Amino acid sequence: MSQDEDDKRLTLKSRKTESLMFVIGLFLFQVFMIVLFAIWVRYDTNARYGGGFDQVQDEIDHTYGYFRDVNIMIFFGFGFLMVFLRRYGYSALGYTFIISAMVAQWSVLLMGFVEFILHNESFRHELFYFNVETLLNGLFCAGAVMITYGALLGKVTPLQMLIVGILEPMFYFLNMYIMEKIKAFDVGGGMTIHTFGCYFGLTVCWFITNKKAKTSPENAASYVGDLFAMAGSLFLWMMWPSFNAAIAPRGDPQLRAIANTFLSLTGSTIATFIVSRLCGHFGHKLDMVHVQNSTLAGGVVQGVLAHLNIGPASAISMGFIVGTISVLGYVYLTPFLAKRFNLQDTCGINNLHGMPGFIGSIAAVIAAAHAINDRSLYSDVEFNILFPAGDEQAKRNAAMTFIVVGVGIVGGLITGAILKLVRKIGGLRKEEYFSDHAFWHVASDYPSGFGSGDDSETGPSSHSVELESKEH
Amino acid sequence: MSQDEDDKRLTLKSRKTESLMFVIGLFLFQVFMIVLFAIWVRYDTNARYGGGFDQVQDEIDHTYGYFRDVNIMIFFGFGFLMVFLRRYGYSALGYTFIISAMVAQWSVLLMGFVEFILHNESFRHELFYFNVETLLNGLFCAGAVMITYGALLGKVTPLQMLIVGILEPMFYFLNMYIMEKIKAFDVGGGMTIHTFGCYFGLTVCWFITNKKAKTSPENAASYVGDLFAMAGSLFLWMMWPSFNAAIAPRGDPQLRAIANTFLSLTGSTIATFIVSRLCGHFGHKLDMVHVQNSTLAGGVVQGVLAHLNIGPASAISMGFIVGTISVLGYVYLTPFLAKRFNLQDTCGINNLHGMPGFIGSIAAVIAAAHAINDRSLYSDVEFNILFPAGDEQAKRNAAMTFIVVGVGIVGGLITGAILKLVRKIGGLRKEEYFSDHAFWHVASDYPSGFGSGDDSETGPSSHSVELESKEH
Amino acid sequence: MSQDEDDKRLTLKSRKTESLMFVIGLFLFQVFMIVLFAIWVRYDTNARYGGGFDQVQDEIDHTYGYFRDVNIMIFFGFGFLMVFLRRYGYSALGYTFIISAMVAQWSVLLMGFVEFILHNESFRHELFYFNVETLLNGLFCAGAVMITYGALLGKVTPLQMLIVGILEPMFYFLNMYIMEKIKAFDVGGGMTIHTFGCYFGLTVCWFITNKKAKTSPENAASYVGDLFAMAGSLFLWMMWPSFNAAIAPRGDPQLRAIANTFLSLTGSTIATFIVSRLCGHFGHKLDMVHVQNSTLAGGVVQGVLAHLNIGPASAISMGFIVGTISVLGYVYLTPFLAKRFNLQDTCGINNLHGMPGFIGSIAAVIAAAHAINDRSLYSDVEFNILFPAGDEQAKRNAAMTFIVVGVGIVGGLITGAILKLVRKIGGLRKEEYFSDHAFWHVASDYPSGFGSGDDSETGPSSHSVELESKEH
Repeated sequence: MSQDEDDKRLTLKSRKTESLMFVIGLFLFQVFMIVLFAIWVRYDTNARYGGGFDQVQDEIDHTYGYFRDVNIMIFFGFGFLMVFLRRYGYSALGYTFIISAMVAQWSVLLMGFVEFILHNESFRHELFYFNVETLLNGLFCAGAVMITYGALLGKVTPLQMLIVGILEPMFYFLNMYIMEKIKAFDVGGGMTIHTFGCYFGLTVCWFITNKKAKTSPENAASYVGDLFAMAGSLFLWMMWPSFNAAIAPRGDPQLRAIANTFLSLTGSTIATFIVSRLCGHFGHKLDMVHVQNSTLAGGVVQGVLAHLNIGPASAISMGFIVGTISVLGYVYLTPFLAKRFNLQDTCGINNLHGMPGFIGSIAAVIAAAHAINDRSLYSDVEFNILFPAGDEQAKRNAAMTFIVVGVGIVGGLITGAILKLVRKIGGLRKEEYFSDHAFWHVASDYPSGFGSGDDSETGPSSHSVELESKEH
Repeated sequence: MSQDEDDKRLTLKSRKTESLMFVIGLFLFQVFMIVLFAIWVRYDTNARYGGGFDQVQDEIDHTYGYFRDVNIMIFFGFGFLMVFLRRYGYSALGYTFIISAMVAQWSVLLMGFVEFILHNESFRHELFYFNVETLLNGLFCAGAVMITYGALLGKVTPLQMLIVGILEPMFYFLNMYIMEKIKAFDVGGGMTIHTFGCYFGLTVCWFITNKKAKTSPENAASYVGDLFAMAGSLFLWMMWPSFNAAIAPRGDPQLRAIANTFLSLTGSTIATFIVSRLCGHFGHKLDMVHVQNSTLAGGVVQGVLAHLNIGPASAISMGFIVGTISVLGYVYLTPFLAKRFNLQDTCGINNLHGMPGFIGSIAAVIAAAHAINDRSLYSDVEFNILFPAGDEQAKRNAAMTFIVVGVGIVGGLITGAILKLVRKIGGLRKEEYFSDHAFWHVASDYPSGFGSGDDSETGPSSHSVELESKEH
Repeated sequence: MSQDEDDKRLTLKSRKTESLMFVIGLFLFQVFMIVLFAIWVRYDTNARYGGGFDQVQDEIDHTYGYFRDVNIMIFFGFGFLMVFLRRYGYSALGYTFIISAMVAQWSVLLMGFVEFILHNESFRHELFYFNVETLLNGLFCAGAVMITYGALLGKVTPLQMLIVGILEPMFYFLNMYIMEKIKAFDVGGGMTIHTFGCYFGLTVCWFITNKKAKTSPENAASYVGDLFAMAGSLFLWMMWPSFNAAIAPRGDPQLRAIANTFLSLTGSTIATFIVSRLCGHFGHKLDMVHVQNSTLAGGVVQGVLAHLNIGPASAISMGFIVGTISVLGYVYLTPFLAKRFNLQDTCGINNLHGMPGFIGSIAAVIAAAHAINDRSLYSDVEFNILFPAGDEQAKRNAAMTFIVVGVGIVGGLITGAILKLVRKIGGLRKEEYFSDHAFWHVASDYPSGFGSGDDSETGPSSHSVELESKEH
């Protein structure tokens, strides 16, 4: 017991160091943002366009509704989707909140930076004008970071998440830069958000997975947590057409983006219920993990090409295929990766974002090749807008598919190595994995000792309470 | 005990059969959809209209916002409204999800079919072009099916719900066909969604209500379940103006649809709190069942005529009246129907959709008659748009009111009879009514033996666990 | 025990009186509304404008999306934010629902009344035409009332809330009248909603705070309640740009309203996590109360001037500053006010609405003074729209800041005195503070005796059950 007490005292000291580093890091980040915004960032304004047309309002009218929906997806959707863990609800919501808010600011600067490099503008003489679409792009970047968080859920300190929130956007916008340069298309971030965010996340995950995490009894859902997670999942599902249509060209492409995404989502939902029952407990029982996640695969798979003329039947089929693969991934691949490759992917992002995103990227290559061969699919005007690289489009998109995976892995290696360096600073004790009480003041009915028998007396929660009473 | 074990083994075998039939049925449905979509369904496109105007984008700008809101109502609103049951949250959300997704696909085909018959087009030579409004109509149809589900909640197998999801849309679109033919109006589905969905549902409910369901101790709310149900209810309430305005003609009628619906909802909310206290426990206590449901009656009652010039005072009054009737229905009628007519209406859809929908339909007949007599209420242009049947409008709408009830009952008889045929396939054991564990893998803290004394040791949940441990 | 029984019988009798007064009051309110609406309120119509342009639809296109978002904020956002209390979820949602619905109706009349006085129109000859913006203004007024409710949460009877719902809007529209007269601006209600609603609420709170409330063990959060509260908080956060942009002039001001609000919210979110950790338990633990509330301060502080050209760096800074102050308020000021001034501010509205609203109001004075001195910030046309009082604008807004505080306190004194008069009518017993069971029929698993040791046997919940069983 005395040994245990010593341990706790050390943990608390180390945690205060972690807190201080988190606080200082976040504060410096905020000061840095404010200074650079003051120097260099301005609102878009009608005065820049001249003429009588209210360009600014037009942008709001067309973009703000989508911005709002994507806002819901990032903060509410991703946040609540990760509340399924029975003792980790505060953390799922809290870190989603703070990291996404940070990334939303950070992205405006990074986007301006990329645009300036691309257009050879001078940072000294020019200002960066932003509008609602700029803010929307920041939410997209936050989406990638939240996907990454899905693999790290329950295993990281706030300081580690802060580091991810600072580093990952740099790699995200590196992809943006490359994509602009090689003229690949990616209307709903199938490559740059889903595939990139996933493989970045899995790489980082590899660094932080350990035996304590893998054997934690707290990596489990609760009944109420599952209901909350469904709220997150459903809002992601319902808003996904907005996600994929938000930056699609107006007119026909925008309708296709909405329609393909919606139909594809219905396809993946149907596949989920079929395969979940086939692979289920007792050979027939549905599993909430599948219903919360695999139903969304149809949105992911449309991420690159939702706006193309693939036909509604293809949209349904694509959704059905990735829904099937996603459930199979949860049943077979996730446990295999955890066992053999030390990759404990908490939310199964490889099944929801990785594989469907990659499949969607390949489908976009095929669709581009098809468009080049069959010019009747698009009018000439539309073709030029949709395929900026012209006859090279299929190759460019193929290249980009592998670039995002590469950038994801390289970025993940760098970030993961840094996370490993700081893992001892306020790091998690065995009983703190997948548990809020390490970093949060918890309510008196914080669930303790779920199904862990005698543990309810001496388990994590009562440890925490004990520690608190000593300190006060 | 041995007898009990045998029973369980039989149940499991039967349930695997049910699962297989569900899986095969759903798979065939999906293949059928993909084939027919491939042959026959295309996105709408500007090329069909000619001219420089972006017709497709215009439709998106006016319809997508409403589509999004109705999407929230169907999947989140109806889903969470039904989570009030303490052990049936997965099923409420899960079956809402899969059946509504199915219906959304199915409806596109059925709608195309109706349009082709109406316009004498050839299925061989013509394609069906769909847009956001088409998808929105699919969600409306899903709304009718979800209303029906409200009466069946807790008493059906997935296979039975699949059958409902396939059959009910056919009758829904039969009503659509008739309504187009006789030129009745129904701007927010007061007749075709609420009244039809309710009487279809009650008829089916009559077939599946039995003693086991009526005596189940699990047909009860939980505190947390009630909070989730309020989330569903509030989203239905808040989005309802979009529901009724979505397909209203632009301009004055659309403003009236929004305003009448909103004001009517405030009226029914006020009535709910008045009558719930008057009829409450101890003569004064409020009841969450009323607050979750009767507050919405004001949206239902505007379902046929929200876009008409009835005046805001009438809108409030209509809401107040149906709110009152709805609470009284919960207090007196629902128990009476369950006792005398073997109609166990789990969610009280007769109180929320049936009676308010019917009253709204009759009000629309009166409003149409009034419009014919007092031509100062509408400009001539508006009159022709709002009352396509001209002086016949009141009669046509009166006829349609009874037609939807008739089609609902006939459809319900056919569907109910089929459900009765398959009720033994994986059918529910006594302790599985209103409980997730029959068809879902449940979390370790799945609530067991609520207020059922010793049952917590030997109740449904531990049965389930026991069964699982044997099978693995 | 016999003494206790007598007490209960008296309580029940008194509560029936309260119920009757609530019911009659609400019914008379509704009749009054219907009569006045019938006489005097009509929908806006294109016929009033003439010409071919669809003015009515244009207003819908620009305002309905914002209306919908603000609707979500009032009914879902405020409602769920207050569900954090472990035994008060029904009441938080229920009273939010009924009082906001009431206020939405009442506001239409009051707004018409104000407009008529302002424009010297005759009530006898003129009708009041309302549109979506009118309904939106009603939701704004409901926002002020919900802020007030935040301070009263857990300590009031339905009758008392009804009185607040009738009286507070009168003072709200008194402010509206004065503001129109002196030409102050307040784009997102920083003065008239947040500052006013807070000081009105704190004044009323002073009347109803008592020892029983302050020592109640039920004024505490639960784990699940905290998750629900996050759903409310996040929807407030995500929709806040709509709140501040809803009535901003189109074009540049609307973009600035969206951008400033969003950036300011990210700033207050970052500040919240920094200061919450610095002030936290054990010197490092995050607190959900801060995360649920102080993150929103960035929206409040932009309430007066979100549409002005303050620059995005200022927006972030303002959010950061008020986020910091808000957390410090929760840590130091709220307990101090409760102890020394008998002000038990349940939700901490002074930290979320009062101080940030006041700071934002002062910032607007500075921004107006700045605009007058530096005319390059706005074009002449824009200047005239944004600053209707011209060179007097800074003074006028300064005056208005203190007027709303004054009207809030005076209104609060009057309302609080009346609440004190009726406090004995069905008033709360000691164990009924912060508890649903006084006025609601609760589910069988209604949480009882949280962390209160032996109380679980004899605590409030079982009292309630006992009372029920006796009465039936």
